[in-house]
Amino acid sequence: MLFERIESKGLAHYSYLLGDSTQALVIDPRRDVDVYVQKAIQAGLRIRYIMETHRNEDYIVGSLELAARTGAEIWHADAQWDYQYGQAAADGQTWKLDRLTLQAIHSPGHTPGSMSYLLRDHTGAPWALFSGDALFAGDVGRVDFMGTDQLENMAGQLYDTIFHKFLPLGDGILLCPAHGAGSVCGSGIADRVWTTLGLELQINPRLQHDSRASFIAEVGRDMEKVPYFAQMEQQNLAGPALLHNLPLPPRLTAEEFARQAQEALVLDTRLELGFASAHVPGALSIWLEGVPSFGGWFLPYDRPLLLVNETGDPTRAVRYLIRMGYDNLAGTLAGGMLAWHTAGYKSASIPTVTVQQLCHLLDEHGEPWILDVRSEQEVAQNEIPEAHNIHLTQLPQRKNEVPRDRPVYVFCGSGLRAMIGASLLRQKGWDNATVVLGGLAGWSSHSCPLDLE
Amino acid sequence: MLFERIESKGLAHYSYLLGDSTQALVIDPRRDVDVYVQKAIQAGLRIRYIMETHRNEDYIVGSLELAARTGAEIWHADAQWDYQYGQAAADGQTWKLDRLTLQAIHSPGHTPGSMSYLLRDHTGAPWALFSGDALFAGDVGRVDFMGTDQLENMAGQLYDTIFHKFLPLGDGILLCPAHGAGSVCGSGIADRVWTTLGLELQINPRLQHDSRASFIAEVGRDMEKVPYFAQMEQQNLAGPALLHNLPLPPRLTAEEFARQAQEALVLDTRLELGFASAHVPGALSIWLEGVPSFGGWFLPYDRPLLLVNETGDPTRAVRYLIRMGYDNLAGTLAGGMLAWHTAGYKSASIPTVTVQQLCHLLDEHGEPWILDVRSEQEVAQNEIPEAHNIHLTQLPQRKNEVPRDRPVYVFCGSGLRAMIGASLLRQKGWDNATVVLGGLAGWSSHSCPLDLE
Amino acid sequence: MLFERIESKGLAHYSYLLGDSTQALVIDPRRDVDVYVQKAIQAGLRIRYIMETHRNEDYIVGSLELAARTGAEIWHADAQWDYQYGQAAADGQTWKLDRLTLQAIHSPGHTPGSMSYLLRDHTGAPWALFSGDALFAGDVGRVDFMGTDQLENMAGQLYDTIFHKFLPLGDGILLCPAHGAGSVCGSGIADRVWTTLGLELQINPRLQHDSRASFIAEVGRDMEKVPYFAQMEQQNLAGPALLHNLPLPPRLTAEEFARQAQEALVLDTRLELGFASAHVPGALSIWLEGVPSFGGWFLPYDRPLLLVNETGDPTRAVRYLIRMGYDNLAGTLAGGMLAWHTAGYKSASIPTVTVQQLCHLLDEHGEPWILDVRSEQEVAQNEIPEAHNIHLTQLPQRKNEVPRDRPVYVFCGSGLRAMIGASLLRQKGWDNATVVLGGLAGWSSHSCPLDLE
Amino acid sequence: MLFERIESKGLAHYSYLLGDSTQALVIDPRRDVDVYVQKAIQAGLRIRYIMETHRNEDYIVGSLELAARTGAEIWHADAQWDYQYGQAAADGQTWKLDRLTLQAIHSPGHTPGSMSYLLRDHTGAPWALFSGDALFAGDVGRVDFMGTDQLENMAGQLYDTIFHKFLPLGDGILLCPAHGAGSVCGSGIADRVWTTLGLELQINPRLQHDSRASFIAEVGRDMEKVPYFAQMEQQNLAGPALLHNLPLPPRLTAEEFARQAQEALVLDTRLELGFASAHVPGALSIWLEGVPSFGGWFLPYDRPLLLVNETGDPTRAVRYLIRMGYDNLAGTLAGGMLAWHTAGYKSASIPTVTVQQLCHLLDEHGEPWILDVRSEQEVAQNEIPEAHNIHLTQLPQRKNEVPRDRPVYVFCGSGLRAMIGASLLRQKGWDNATVVLGGLAGWSSHSCPLDLE
Repeated sequence: MLFERIESKGLAHYSYLLGDSTQALVIDPRRDVDVYVQKAIQAGLRIRYIMETHRNEDYIVGSLELAARTGAEIWHADAQWDYQYGQAAADGQTWKLDRLTLQAIHSPGHTPGSMSYLLRDHTGAPWALFSGDALFAGDVGRVDFMGTDQLENMAGQLYDTIFHKFLPLGDGILLCPAHGAGSVCGSGIADRVWTTLGLELQINPRLQHDSRASFIAEVGRDMEKVPYFAQMEQQNLAGPALLHNLPLPPRLTAEEFARQAQEALVLDTRLELGFASAHVPGALSIWLEGVPSFGGWFLPYDRPLLLVNETGDPTRAVRYLIRMGYDNLAGTLAGGMLAWHTAGYKSASIPTVTVQQLCHLLDEHGEPWILDVRSEQEVAQNEIPEAHNIHLTQLPQRKNEVPRDRPVYVFCGSGLRAMIGASLLRQKGWDNATVVLGGLAGWSSHSCPLDLE
Repeated sequence: MLFERIESKGLAHYSYLLGDSTQALVIDPRRDVDVYVQKAIQAGLRIRYIMETHRNEDYIVGSLELAARTGAEIWHADAQWDYQYGQAAADGQTWKLDRLTLQAIHSPGHTPGSMSYLLRDHTGAPWALFSGDALFAGDVGRVDFMGTDQLENMAGQLYDTIFHKFLPLGDGILLCPAHGAGSVCGSGIADRVWTTLGLELQINPRLQHDSRASFIAEVGRDMEKVPYFAQMEQQNLAGPALLHNLPLPPRLTAEEFARQAQEALVLDTRLELGFASAHVPGALSIWLEGVPSFGGWFLPYDRPLLLVNETGDPTRAVRYLIRMGYDNLAGTLAGGMLAWHTAGYKSASIPTVTVQQLCHLLDEHGEPWILDVRSEQEVAQNEIPEAHNIHLTQLPQRKNEVPRDRPVYVFCGSGLRAMIGASLLRQKGWDNATVVLGGLAGWSSHSCPLDLE
Repeated sequence: MLFERIESKGLAHYSYLLGDSTQALVIDPRRDVDVYVQKAIQAGLRIRYIMETHRNEDYIVGSLELAARTGAEIWHADAQWDYQYGQAAADGQTWKLDRLTLQAIHSPGHTPGSMSYLLRDHTGAPWALFSGDALFAGDVGRVDFMGTDQLENMAGQLYDTIFHKFLPLGDGILLCPAHGAGSVCGSGIADRVWTTLGLELQINPRLQHDSRASFIAEVGRDMEKVPYFAQMEQQNLAGPALLHNLPLPPRLTAEEFARQAQEALVLDTRLELGFASAHVPGALSIWLEGVPSFGGWFLPYDRPLLLVNETGDPTRAVRYLIRMGYDNLAGTLAGGMLAWHTAGYKSASIPTVTVQQLCHLLDEHGEPWILDVRSEQEVAQNEIPEAHNIHLTQLPQRKNEVPRDRPVYVFCGSGLRAMIGASLLRQKGWDNATVVLGGLAGWSSHSCPLDLE
Repeated sequence: MLFERIESKGLAHYSYLLGDSTQALVIDPRRDVDVYVQKAIQAGLRIRYIMETHRNEDYIVGSLELAARTGAEIWHADAQWDYQYGQAAADGQTWKLDRLTLQAIHSPGHTPGSMSYLLRDHTGAPWALFSGDALFAGDVGRVDFMGTDQLENMAGQLYDTIFHKFLPLGDGILLCPAHGAGSVCGSGIADRVWTTLGLELQINPRLQHDSRASFIAEVGRDMEKVPYFAQMEQQNLAGPALLHNLPLPPRLTAEEFARQAQEALVLDTRLELGFASAHVPGALSIWLEGVPSFGGWFLPYDRPLLLVNETGDPTRAVRYLIRMGYDNLAGTLAGGMLAWHTAGYKSASIPTVTVQQLCHLLDEHGEPWILDVRSEQEVAQNEIPEAHNIHLTQLPQRKNEVPRDRPVYVFCGSGLRAMIGASLLRQKGWDNATVVLGGLAGWSSHSCPLDLE
């Protein structure tokens, strides 16, 4: 038997590859499908079915790509929408995989037509539940995608799904959601890598309600909707373009890169320290592992992207980008910043300070303007007095709250997001931002008083 | 967080690699430890602890090898025995792994000093139980290792461990045993790749008892004790020899191979069909994936082993053999049987028949002598009338029950074990064995009457 | 600098990947182009040019596939033909690759418009010659593709190319041909993996002529033209179908396989011994590594192919087949012959004898009919008296020379090709063929008199 | 046939793996021998011989390590020294490798007892020469290891070796030296990846002499002797410690790292830009790919080394270090500089300027103190007027020539070596060094006048 969870890092997206003696299926495949094809071949299995739990909004679904490679059947949830490929799964419908059975369970709440899938073994005993975005480890799905007027309705449906359909299956059922910790689809997802209905019933804070009404009143809403979601929804309905292979962009000489950079957006995926020292003027900083989480907020679809990285191998960045539909990657800087400098091009830099240096500065100059780009939740847990909080994702809209005429110290948890923020400000004309290395973690570890007054 | 199960195929041995942000531990490592070292490095973790659930009897424990590579601490269970390395874990003792906690639970039954380990997350909530050989998916541990007079005692201890220590932890707890389906440590282990206490309570046939007495009366005993177990126990107490690397044996020319084969046992790991056509005279047939299950029954420790395979790459066979302490692999036949034949050496063959051919033969000649080498359990499920059942593992002792003066047709489920049996008989001087291809499965699929009369 | 030769085993086809600091080019790419793309990425290079030395007839050129993946320019030789894609290289034309220069040299003989490419380093010093099919290690290109009436003309052109264009470049020039030992494009290619013009001048037997006339009189002609060559020529002119990925065929259950096998040809790529014991009735035996050499002789393009192998992973077989344009692979037998037998299907077998057994048979029964399927060259070197020689590739046409009414013993060098021959005969209704294991090599190693009289 | 060159990057060391049908040998293996073992297994070959061309001084020879893994015989050159393992090869001695023959040729010059090995194919024709450090592509071996008084003597021996033993073998012989471009064993080695005796005769500048005397007068001497050479020589004579596996160092938390850093030297292998922004105070900067070339100059053997890198995977750094005998790597900083900062530790930085910024500074402030750390050869090719040249390797001894009281701008070809230099100065108390990004290459590409006056 084959039972593998394949995680797409950063998106914290979980897909599942199930197989018995000869056949396999994939639940919620991602767009770069080579991993499924390869693992199935190695296990001697043929992928027959592709199951979707809902129309995803946070990544490009790989169903069409995988079907093109394997001939597998695509089964959609959310049949209320107008899919232009595949077929709709029906509540209660079953699929056989040699001795295993998969059964669809209509589980509305996150979307009206969400489907979960219950896996039964050869004795018919239920065993694992693929819950899509309805129930996670430590959290439940958000219910705000259908609009504000539908919040209560959807939250109620989600309550019924979880409490009347899922939990009665038994505490011992293995719970296999579509996302893990770090996903934008659930702010409180725990990093238990495997969980069960019983564990969730006991320790998931969202399930500790004594009434349907109190669940409805508190459940995930008013969450941020990442700009690229609209793009994903549309592509996932129409059927995304087939890639066949990872579309590796051309490697450009410094000269070609400089020429194309006049039109394109330069994305620099190095860590914050290298970016601080020197970067292509106008570049946006998002460290590589932050691209799945932050790329969708700041990267355009209608303008070419150019890439700067450390190693020269863009493979991982390309995976991250095409999973969000960024097929507009036009090139990478061959030889990295070293090539840029040896070709004699100007670079820009962004100042940094360690926490110790900041303490000295504050002692001497007083009245700093501190920009805290952490989320409201993070701020609530550990506030910096006198700091101005603008969540990183809001910075483009709220940038004018940031002064231009005195030093601005940008804080986050570690320095990585602060550098994104500083590079955004720099793009818009602010040249007075300094990034605090180590961020609040460094601050907390250090003796300089947290209270800046 | 890192939570990986590493399976040693064939042995159906499960080890676990757990890690949080900086540290990792391994539970019941196998002897070829490169997999743990590699995965920890990739995840950015340092292996700090090596935990054993009991003194294993079915494979060489890799604790010393892993400690030599990583500097990790070894924690033994079964402290009643005289380990010559590492330290003894105590009931209730805990180990921190960054935010995670592992807690030892004394869980006697399979052995007197077996330990299980309960994993708690950063909130202290229990989450997963590493149950060693006490409780499996669909089965419980065997209790016959301490001798017949201890059967009731040990079975009672196992009952208490499972019913009074494990199950009260909650249905939702993830159950992580030391073996999966196919292990000799539990004949009825199910192939649910992940399971929970709740699932086992509900569907594990060994737990469906209404009294401690009925559990004791039925629980696993009189199971076969594979000959190599004694060797494993001794080595695991004293500390197995360090390997550092897979000890790849020299590739021998046909001439060298033929010379050494006068002293050594030749193990041929090809599939049954190639072996049937031609093999080095005197060779024992065990197809590659059968080596972990059957090698320990038939391979000597005190005589060199020589290997014939299909591909020339002995890596997998070496892994299988050293996991059982067979460090006496003296060489492989470079170029395989083709090289043997082109060097002009004689080969032997073993006749085969398809089920159709057998039907014809039976029709014409009647009175066949059919040797069924399947286990009693298998025979009980699907009997061949008039067949003589000698379980493959008993064949060396009971070979004299097999006639020498008329055709013997050897059956198993598929033909693979039948070929082991035929090669054993041939080694001992029986030259009248014919293997039935497809075995009982082929027979059942076919119209020739199962009832041979 | 990057300078790699990529060999396609079996075809003994050599392609080359050259690169300097930022750019790379590929000479004569094969159809499965992932290797070039991967290596160039790893080396930090962009593939800019695809160079062809001639219109290949023995494999599908990967130029279009590689251009589709990389955007590289395709440069053809043999501009006299009507290529439907790419551009024609001109004699003397040069391409820059950072500091390196590649220069085209018109080198007719094998084809009228063959091009070789001379590589010069940054000082302009000539360094390596990519000679296509004009000059090999130990052999020269064949000159018989343009028809019998052009033989002298083409041979003369080849002489001029080698003696007046190549050799004057200097003994020290590295020679990089398009084929190595084992290719059908040159029967006498040596297995020196690297060679030079000086070495060839000195030891290549084809270059030891004291006159143009004697070269012309002896040079490669009347060589076998493999049936699939016509297909290759046509596809390489028109532009082969794009694959994007290896087209892995579906894994079929024994039932599906049996049904499709009524129409399809079954290709069994296991070694000769497994095939001998049991195979799907009607299957053609070609051991895996023999597929590139013998597939093109016996496999149809207009009928589906089904595959039986040992391991279940068809990747290598698929590579071999699509390189020859066999895009008609319809499926593989999931679980191999074991699955076939356990499903109760009938299999066929082909008898084998060792050389020792054959000696005994000959002694007892006399008058054997021995079929030697080796080539005329091989037979000339080491003849079996009384054997009937029909080269394997001629067997379909000359099968009626083989008697049906008495035992036929099929010989080759080792037994592998003999099994191809025996399976061909069996397909056509001969059921009296026995394969001699070890073949002539075994015979020669053994005391049984070579002289059968 | 197997013929592979294995390059150790950075050291530019070439070793060779040769094999025929069953046996293989390795010439001048490196210490991390897994590559040879793996490739031989894949090719179906057994490594029988380990051949050394001379007692190496620039890396730890892997002969003992490889012998321990494979049982191969070790054959030394330089038998005048007292090897404590292996046997001495004799001039003219031959070894058979199936059909191939390897013949030793005494070839003194670089060392008194250097051996080269001539490979002959099955016909006996000479084919390739493994020339050790006697003759390279574009250069010859240095002759200054035996001391100044032996310079003429050794140079004369080298002349005789090359002109009287090597070149007479014929222009077409493939030349396989022990080093490629970038090695400290020959300053002018060309980056032709393959070469021949004929090519060298024609274009190697060291061979363009019309007399033995003029060769002697000019040949490589007074070259830098890297400090670690003495260590290598000693270990290679005595037999280096066996590693068995790559000794991966423990991953340390920031706290552990900080504590150990009080005694240890911190080696930071990140690129120059990240190091510039922030590094552990006191750290030495050597970018990863520079470690083989520069590590031996600046790293101690008698003090623990701690490692900071970008990715957390120290594998490559460990390979580089153990090849030079640095078995004293005590740990790596888990989580890299981000972990350092989030733990609240202070970091240091080194200022950088782009060439444009430098121009402005020069215009405004005049009288810069420019430190050019390039080699004399590089300076000779492209001098910076007014710059002070101290080759990087001389900086520890000549640091007092650098002023402390005004800005010092450190130049090299690109900025990488300049950062090594700046970090060395910083360690010794200079805090006034600024690194010029892009170095002279950037400068040359830019309009700012090269003439600084």
